[in-house]
Amino acid sequence: MDNSSLDAVLAHIDANIDSSRARWFDLLRIPSISAQPAHKPDCIRAAAHMRDLLTGMGFEARLSETKGLPGVIATHHHAGGNAPRVLFYGHYDVQPADPIALWHSDPFDPQLVEGPDGARVVARGAVDDKGQVMMVLEAIRAHLAVNRALPVNLTVLLEGEEECGSPSLEAMLDAERAALAADFVLVADTNMWNRDTPAITTSLRGLAALELRITGPNRDLHSGLFGGPALNPIRALTRILGDLFDETGTIAIPGFYDGIAEIPADVLASWKATGFDEAGWLAAIGLDRASGEQGRSVLEQNWSRPTAEINGIFGGYQGAGSKTVIPAEAGAKLTFRLVPGQNPDAVIAGFKRFVQQRLLPGAQAHFEVYGASPGLMVPIDAPFVRAARGALAAEFGKAPVLAGCGASIPVVEAFERQLGLQTLLVGFGLDDDCIHSPNEKFEMRCFHRGMRAEARMLAAFGMEG
Amino acid sequence: MDNSSLDAVLAHIDANIDSSRARWFDLLRIPSISAQPAHKPDCIRAAAHMRDLLTGMGFEARLSETKGLPGVIATHHHAGGNAPRVLFYGHYDVQPADPIALWHSDPFDPQLVEGPDGARVVARGAVDDKGQVMMVLEAIRAHLAVNRALPVNLTVLLEGEEECGSPSLEAMLDAERAALAADFVLVADTNMWNRDTPAITTSLRGLAALELRITGPNRDLHSGLFGGPALNPIRALTRILGDLFDETGTIAIPGFYDGIAEIPADVLASWKATGFDEAGWLAAIGLDRASGEQGRSVLEQNWSRPTAEINGIFGGYQGAGSKTVIPAEAGAKLTFRLVPGQNPDAVIAGFKRFVQQRLLPGAQAHFEVYGASPGLMVPIDAPFVRAARGALAAEFGKAPVLAGCGASIPVVEAFERQLGLQTLLVGFGLDDDCIHSPNEKFEMRCFHRGMRAEARMLAAFGMEG
Repeated sequence: MDNSSLDAVLAHIDANIDSSRARWFDLLRIPSISAQPAHKPDCIRAAAHMRDLLTGMGFEARLSETKGLPGVIATHHHAGGNAPRVLFYGHYDVQPADPIALWHSDPFDPQLVEGPDGARVVARGAVDDKGQVMMVLEAIRAHLAVNRALPVNLTVLLEGEEECGSPSLEAMLDAERAALAADFVLVADTNMWNRDTPAITTSLRGLAALELRITGPNRDLHSGLFGGPALNPIRALTRILGDLFDETGTIAIPGFYDGIAEIPADVLASWKATGFDEAGWLAAIGLDRASGEQGRSVLEQNWSRPTAEINGIFGGYQGAGSKTVIPAEAGAKLTFRLVPGQNPDAVIAGFKRFVQQRLLPGAQAHFEVYGASPGLMVPIDAPFVRAARGALAAEFGKAPVLAGCGASIPVVEAFERQLGLQTLLVGFGLDDDCIHSPNEKFEMRCFHRGMRAEARMLAAFGMEG
Repeated sequence: MDNSSLDAVLAHIDANIDSSRARWFDLLRIPSISAQPAHKPDCIRAAAHMRDLLTGMGFEARLSETKGLPGVIATHHHAGGNAPRVLFYGHYDVQPADPIALWHSDPFDPQLVEGPDGARVVARGAVDDKGQVMMVLEAIRAHLAVNRALPVNLTVLLEGEEECGSPSLEAMLDAERAALAADFVLVADTNMWNRDTPAITTSLRGLAALELRITGPNRDLHSGLFGGPALNPIRALTRILGDLFDETGTIAIPGFYDGIAEIPADVLASWKATGFDEAGWLAAIGLDRASGEQGRSVLEQNWSRPTAEINGIFGGYQGAGSKTVIPAEAGAKLTFRLVPGQNPDAVIAGFKRFVQQRLLPGAQAHFEVYGASPGLMVPIDAPFVRAARGALAAEFGKAPVLAGCGASIPVVEAFERQLGLQTLLVGFGLDDDCIHSPNEKFEMRCFHRGMRAEARMLAAFGMEG
C-alpha cells in the first residue's frame, strides 16, 4: 500500500466522521448489559446488529453460539497468502449503568457534548468497548471504501460476555480454533498515555492466587486458662507472613525472582521519558512514598516486577471490644503478580516451602490454590509491534509509550494459552473516561485520531507481511 | 480456740449434714439468674432469703441496694479487737440454665444422686457459687452452735451480679467501704487440685487488652493496578506482629518482663510435686508440645509467666475464593496476661513503641486500649495464708497445692484496687463440676470436707490474730 493510498484513506476518515459517529451511536443505543439477565435480548440484538454491520461491510459474518451470549465472528480474507492474518478482538457488551441517578443523561441515549477538551460522546460503552470497536471498524470501512481491499487478512471476534467474566470464552476459542487462526491478535480496549501520546501495552502481569490456613488447637480456647502453653495460630500465621519481605521491600521467598529478565535499558529510558508523576500518583491514593522494591521506580515496580500481596487476613475475634480467645485457626488470602520468566507453579511451590520452614511446632498449614497464570510480554521488536510503533509515531508525531500493565487481562492470557497467539494492545481511551462509572465518555478527538491510527496500523501490518 | 472445741465443731458438722444440705437445697430452688431480666424478682428473693438466713444465724444483715441487683451484707463482730477481721465474699446469682434440654433434671429442683465418686447434688448453682457459699455458712453455723461465738470478726458480702459482669460491684465497694473494712478477703469460688488434694490460688494473672489498627492507602485498591508501589496495611501489620516473639517463645517487646520476680524454688518444687500431666493437658486441646517460653513447664507458663496473645486479626477480603484487593486498613486484637511486678501501663506503652518502631513508611498505627489490670499475688507466708495452709493440711492429710491461675478474677482485682485487701482463694469444686454447663454438680464428699476445712480455717485465722 503506497503513501498516497493511505493518505486517501485518512482523508476519507476525516471527511466521513459524522457518519462514523452515527453508526457508533446506533450501537450505543442498544443496552447490551451482559451481567443482567433482563438485558439478554438486548445483548442478542447487539450481536445481530454487529453481524449485519460487518456483513454490510463485505465480511462473511455469523454468530458463534455459546452456553451464554453469542460471539460474532467475521472474516475478510482477500489480501493474499503473503499478507499477515490479524485477529481483531473486541466486545459488544457493556457494564451496568448503575447508579443511574448519577448520570447527566440517559446512558443509552448517546449525547455529543462539549467538554474542556472539545466534543465528547457520553454513553454507557462510549469507549468500553463499543467506541473502540467502532473506531477500528470505521478505519476498516475507510480502507474498503478507498481501496476495495484490506492490507491484511482480517478476522473479527466480538465477545458478548467480557464484562461478566467471559464464562464462555474458553469454550468458544476451542470450538472456533480454525476460524480464529491468525498471526497475532489486535485489541483496542486500553488507554493512551495521555491525550497527545499513544501507548502500546507490551507486558501484563500474571497472577497466582491461594489461601493459607493455619490450624493449631482442636478448638477455640480461653486465653487466660490456656494462654502461654497453647499454640496460637494467629501467632504462627503472622510469624510466617511477617517474613515475606526483607527490609528493602524484596520478597524473601527463595527462588521467587528466578527467570525474570531485567527490562531493557531503552524501555526503562522510555518509561523515564514519560515524566510519570510518581508523587502525584501516590498522593492520589493517600501515600507519600512507594513501598515496593527499593531502587525501582513506581512504573517499574508496577509494570515489570512481581508482587506478593496479602489480600485478606482473618482469625479469632473481630467484633467490638475484646475477647480472650485463642482461636483454633487463622488464615490469609494471597496473590502473587507474576512477570514474564517466572514459573507460576514454581512460585506456589516456593511459597509452600517458605511456609513449612517457618511453621511453629504444633501448627499445620493448609493451602488452597485458586489459580496460576504467567506474566506475558509482547517482544517490542516483533514485526507487528514495530509496525504499530511506526504507525502511531506517524499519526501523533511522537513515539508511543511502551507501557506495562500491572493487572492481568484474562482474554490476552487465553489467546496465548489456547491459541498460541501474542496480542497487540493499543487503545485510545483516557484514564478519566469513567469506564464502569456514570457518565462514561470517549472524546471525539481520541475517537478521530484513533480511527486514523488504526488505519495507519492496518497499512503498516500489510507492509510488514 | 482449743483443739477439743474445734473437734466439737467438726463433729457437729458431721452430725448435721442432712440439715445443712436441706438449707443448701432451699437456696438452689430459687432461680436467681442475674443475666435474665425475667428472673430479677427471683434474684431479689434470693437476696432476701440470704439476708434472713444470716439474721437467723445471729448476724446483723441487710441488703445493699445498687443500680442493679442488691448485695447482701451481714456482720458478726463479737470476737474482740485482737481477732482478725475477715470479709467473706460469695455470690447468690447463677448462670442461665440453657441449654435446658441437656439437663437430666430440672436445674432448679436439686437432686441428690449417686455418681461414680459417691453422692452428688445436681442443680444450677450446685457449686457455683451457692454450694460453696452454703458450705462456708454451714461451717460458721457449726462454730456458733458449739461455741456461741466465732473465732474472727466476720463480714459476709454476697453479690447478685457476679455472673453478668459485676456491673454494680465497684460502686457498692465504694459505698460500703466502712462496712467492709477487714484484714483480708476469703473467697470460696475456686477448685481443689483434685478430689483428695486441696488448693490455694495464690497468684492471678492480670490483663491488658487493646486493638491495633494499621491504615495506609486512602481506599481499597486493585492489587494489579497498584500492587508493588502501594503500601499494603496487612503487610505492615504482619511484619510487626511477626516480630512479637523470638525463636524461644519469649516476647520481644523491650522491657516487657521488667519487674517480674522469679517464682520461689519451693513453690516451683510444689508445682512439680503435683505430678501435673503436661502431655495429657496438651493432648486434650489437640497439641503435642507447649508453645510458650522454652525451659518453663506448662504450669509455670500458665500460672506465673505473662503472655501476649493475638485474639483476633482482620483485614481485606475474607470470603470464598480470591479478591485482588489491597485494603485501606487491617487490625488485630491483643491481650497481654500480666503477672505480679509488671506495670500494665508500661506494658501498653512498650507495645506502642514496639509497633511504631516497626511501622513501614506510609503506615499509621492506631490504638484503642480496652483496659489494663495488674497481676496479683498473695504472699504464701502471709498469716492468713499460713493459717489456711495448716488447716487444709490437717483436714486432708496433705499440703494444699499453691496454685496460680492463668485467668483474671475481676472481684479480686477490685478488692485489691478499691479496698487495698488481699484475697485468700480456697474452694472445693472439681474441674468436672460443669459450672456454667448443663448438669452442674457438687459432690457431697467435697461439700462435706469443704465445710470441715472452712471450720478449721476459721479457727486457724483466730489463732493467727
